[in-house]
Amino acid sequence: MMAGMTETPHPLYAKHADTLARALTAITERGYWSAYPESPSPRVYGETAASEGETAFRAYLGADFPLDQPGDGDRVATEASPFGIDLAVRYPHADADTLVAAASAALPAWRDAGPQTRLGVCLEILARLHAHVFELANAVHATSGQAFVMAFQAGGAHALDRALEALAYAYAEMTRHPGTAEWEKPAGKGEPLRMTKTFHVVPRGVALVIGCNTFPTWNSYPGLFASLATGNPVIVKPHPRAVLPLAITVKYAREVLAEAGFDPNLVLLAAEAPGEKLASDLALHRAVKIVDFTGSTEYGDWLEAHARQASVYTEKAGVNTIVVDSTDDFAGMCRNIGFSLVLYSGQMCTTPQNILIPSAGIATDQGQKSFDEVTAGIAGAVAKLTGDPARAVELTGAIVNDGVLARLDEVARVGEAVLPSQPLAHPAYPGAVVRTPTVVKLGAADVATYGREWFGPISFAIGTDSTAHSLEIFRSTVGQRGALTAAVYSTDEKVLDAAEAAAIEVGVHLSCNLTGAVFVNQSAAFSDFHGSGANAAANAALTDGAYVANRFRVVQSRRHS
Amino acid sequence: MMAGMTETPHPLYAKHADTLARALTAITERGYWSAYPESPSPRVYGETAASEGETAFRAYLGADFPLDQPGDGDRVATEASPFGIDLAVRYPHADADTLVAAASAALPAWRDAGPQTRLGVCLEILARLHAHVFELANAVHATSGQAFVMAFQAGGAHALDRALEALAYAYAEMTRHPGTAEWEKPAGKGEPLRMTKTFHVVPRGVALVIGCNTFPTWNSYPGLFASLATGNPVIVKPHPRAVLPLAITVKYAREVLAEAGFDPNLVLLAAEAPGEKLASDLALHRAVKIVDFTGSTEYGDWLEAHARQASVYTEKAGVNTIVVDSTDDFAGMCRNIGFSLVLYSGQMCTTPQNILIPSAGIATDQGQKSFDEVTAGIAGAVAKLTGDPARAVELTGAIVNDGVLARLDEVARVGEAVLPSQPLAHPAYPGAVVRTPTVVKLGAADVATYGREWFGPISFAIGTDSTAHSLEIFRSTVGQRGALTAAVYSTDEKVLDAAEAAAIEVGVHLSCNLTGAVFVNQSAAFSDFHGSGANAAANAALTDGAYVANRFRVVQSRRHS
Repeated sequence: MMAGMTETPHPLYAKHADTLARALTAITERGYWSAYPESPSPRVYGETAASEGETAFRAYLGADFPLDQPGDGDRVATEASPFGIDLAVRYPHADADTLVAAASAALPAWRDAGPQTRLGVCLEILARLHAHVFELANAVHATSGQAFVMAFQAGGAHALDRALEALAYAYAEMTRHPGTAEWEKPAGKGEPLRMTKTFHVVPRGVALVIGCNTFPTWNSYPGLFASLATGNPVIVKPHPRAVLPLAITVKYAREVLAEAGFDPNLVLLAAEAPGEKLASDLALHRAVKIVDFTGSTEYGDWLEAHARQASVYTEKAGVNTIVVDSTDDFAGMCRNIGFSLVLYSGQMCTTPQNILIPSAGIATDQGQKSFDEVTAGIAGAVAKLTGDPARAVELTGAIVNDGVLARLDEVARVGEAVLPSQPLAHPAYPGAVVRTPTVVKLGAADVATYGREWFGPISFAIGTDSTAHSLEIFRSTVGQRGALTAAVYSTDEKVLDAAEAAAIEVGVHLSCNLTGAVFVNQSAAFSDFHGSGANAAANAALTDGAYVANRFRVVQSRRHS
Repeated sequence: MMAGMTETPHPLYAKHADTLARALTAITERGYWSAYPESPSPRVYGETAASEGETAFRAYLGADFPLDQPGDGDRVATEASPFGIDLAVRYPHADADTLVAAASAALPAWRDAGPQTRLGVCLEILARLHAHVFELANAVHATSGQAFVMAFQAGGAHALDRALEALAYAYAEMTRHPGTAEWEKPAGKGEPLRMTKTFHVVPRGVALVIGCNTFPTWNSYPGLFASLATGNPVIVKPHPRAVLPLAITVKYAREVLAEAGFDPNLVLLAAEAPGEKLASDLALHRAVKIVDFTGSTEYGDWLEAHARQASVYTEKAGVNTIVVDSTDDFAGMCRNIGFSLVLYSGQMCTTPQNILIPSAGIATDQGQKSFDEVTAGIAGAVAKLTGDPARAVELTGAIVNDGVLARLDEVARVGEAVLPSQPLAHPAYPGAVVRTPTVVKLGAADVATYGREWFGPISFAIGTDSTAHSLEIFRSTVGQRGALTAAVYSTDEKVLDAAEAAAIEVGVHLSCNLTGAVFVNQSAAFSDFHGSGANAAANAALTDGAYVANRFRVVQSRRHS
């Protein structure tokens, strides 16, 4: 038996065993469950949590970020807040070889610690991050442009839920086989053949997580924790404009790892200098065996094509689509769609872009509504939600970067805006760049425009010949470009069935008749899958068996008993 | 709810539910279990089974193989038996587009049938194949050159066991999530949010299985059945010299599919004309989303690099290694190693090639043995097993193709043969090409020779400075070229631990001190993993969660309850 292999798990495993057990049940049931309360209310988190978190966040600004990892002594500061918050945080810098060498050296002891100890440590990291969730939320808010409550939820509580979900899948997968097995094969009249078999879970190598600008934690945590739990050291390469949330994550992860007796270099920050291409250097490094990426189709495709030594998990662009056929709650439908467009100014990878509506109009509880009345209803809902700037910015947040502004300029030239985008003054941040969503009217023939992603507060109301035609467009555009979300509104079961058949065919998750407080762009950890891996928008789902199973291998030894 | 989604499973599911349940237990326990008896004895299979199977086999020879699948009307006959059996079976021919179109058309109904029905049908196919296992064994024997009993076991019973193992993993993976879930999220003082979620298992697309010459069924069945069970139509592209075993497999699969009411084109044979490159045409087809391949490193690497639209599972070449340090059963060790070299004339992907022995000799129960005495002991065991041609050929079988003969010629020039390869006359088949194993003495410096695979009855006894040196060579050669198997002989726990640590590091399964009736080149379904996916010899293991999890996706729909 290998040294270290039979040791009892670290006490952190017992500390968090109940949480793990509940999470394991949750991923089997896929009903509602959450481990981290999503309300930032003082009644939940205590009276001082919010101010302490903000103080901790402010202490990072204009300073060297406290991270004692290997590096070249240089510091990099690349962030620019969409709210105009002066960040100027200086992160340690290192090149790819330095980071990979440090990560590789940390691997063997982490591998040999076994699944239970690794889970205990990972769950303690989540607990530590949760204890600092306001600090994390401030960092997500400041760098992504998300309004604070959304930053707290998506960037804090929900991100932790998704991390826990990934940990649960990883643990289930690592423990589906026993650590040892007795094999006894009958041998006719003779003694049976007896062997003892030992099954070691071994990691693939060094893992790389490449974060995005809009959801630095939510989109990074599943890959980070799935890789770490399965034994792989993780290098976290944040988006240059959203470093702080992941720097804080790395800081607390390293603290916990060191406290538990492990090499903190199991989790490393790879902050990059402008123009450095550190992500590519890391992704192509021969010791890097896993890459998780969220971002553009162009770079995701490049990674898939070139990081051939690694398993590459990508979430890329897509054309999220709503098929509007009919409704028995016209006001609810318009409100629901409108809200989904306003939320974070459409800067979610799950925001609907293409709204397919028959040109002849639709049947509703308020009688037949023309195409223009439907688009006006949706535009009106958006306008209502954004009418009062002070309340609006708590939904829209700010515009994450200039690329979004450029697309807003461009889209103003391609079609008639049912609702133009408006700048809003942010009452708290004079430097904030805020824009309300635009809804642009197009015809079915304008596929050159709506057939690709326009990331940002840009949606198209597209007139079609019929719902059958809408479904045809849905099939062809999503079939070609992919999508993370789709929705259908219909009072006709046959149409819902046809939409579901189309969604299955093109591999996109479908929401039906959302008129209340569930929105197509929100997915609930432990219940909804995010992405499917079955179309061009992502090659994997968060989070399922396929997402974790290839992050480790089983290596066996056998000897006669 | 989708049409077809709530239907009760096909009665074949209930018929085989017990077998499935037992297999599901087996993959969780990884102890001993087998569903298909490996003894071809009349006491097990009945007095007439063997002769009926042979008659059925002979009826195929020199005739058009009965397969009613789409094609161009041409027939191809490409086989040449290593035993000189006159095969001349003519298989239907079709081009890649025809095959893929037929497979694609069969997909939707198979997908919508759901996991239970698919499992029932797949298990019935295995039952049908098992009912014809002698026919199958004759075909494997005639095309691969395996002796009959081995063909019956590896090509029949064990292949069926591996298929069942793959089915069990596929079923476990598809059913780890419920088909539907109720989600109820508390909403403060208001009514909870309630949604019903439906989770559809959707296949990736058309699957391709590329068979090999030596183990046409054993190496093809796991991928074939894992893909089929998860909803993917499968195109089976046999090795041009080993078509019949897979043609028979496809024939019975199609029979069962049609009887169960499904399109038989869910399983198609892709027999290729000489020089046609049909495997490459199929592997690059945009509708082909899964490729399983067993064969050369060169072609496996090509597939991985070029079949980018697909998930590619490859088993390739490697340098299987034995580290000899010491033993308390010298005779048993020599017998065991010798047998592993003789079996199928070393033409198993798991046959040891490099035997690393300290030049200073080793400690044994018979006292210190010099390097030459150890190699003589192993060579002697081989010579004893091959001394009587009539008995020898029941172990060695015949040489599968001219490539092996060419390597035997080449190796005779690279080092001193402790034991030269000998031709043997086969008492039953005058045209058989039989060769006994050669053992060639090399030094540790001859890495240019032993550092790559010499597929066939070729092994190297390599003198090293010490066991530590042996482990260093083990690490570097297997680390670079990969291996499917490794073994160690030592009476020292520290050496066993060091060998296990090295095996974990280079990701190869390790057998310790095999001196009895278990051999390093044999892996038992449901207990031993074949390959690890953790080194260059294979990018996946047969059979585990990672092997099945990416063969389907989950696509979800949700609506308010």
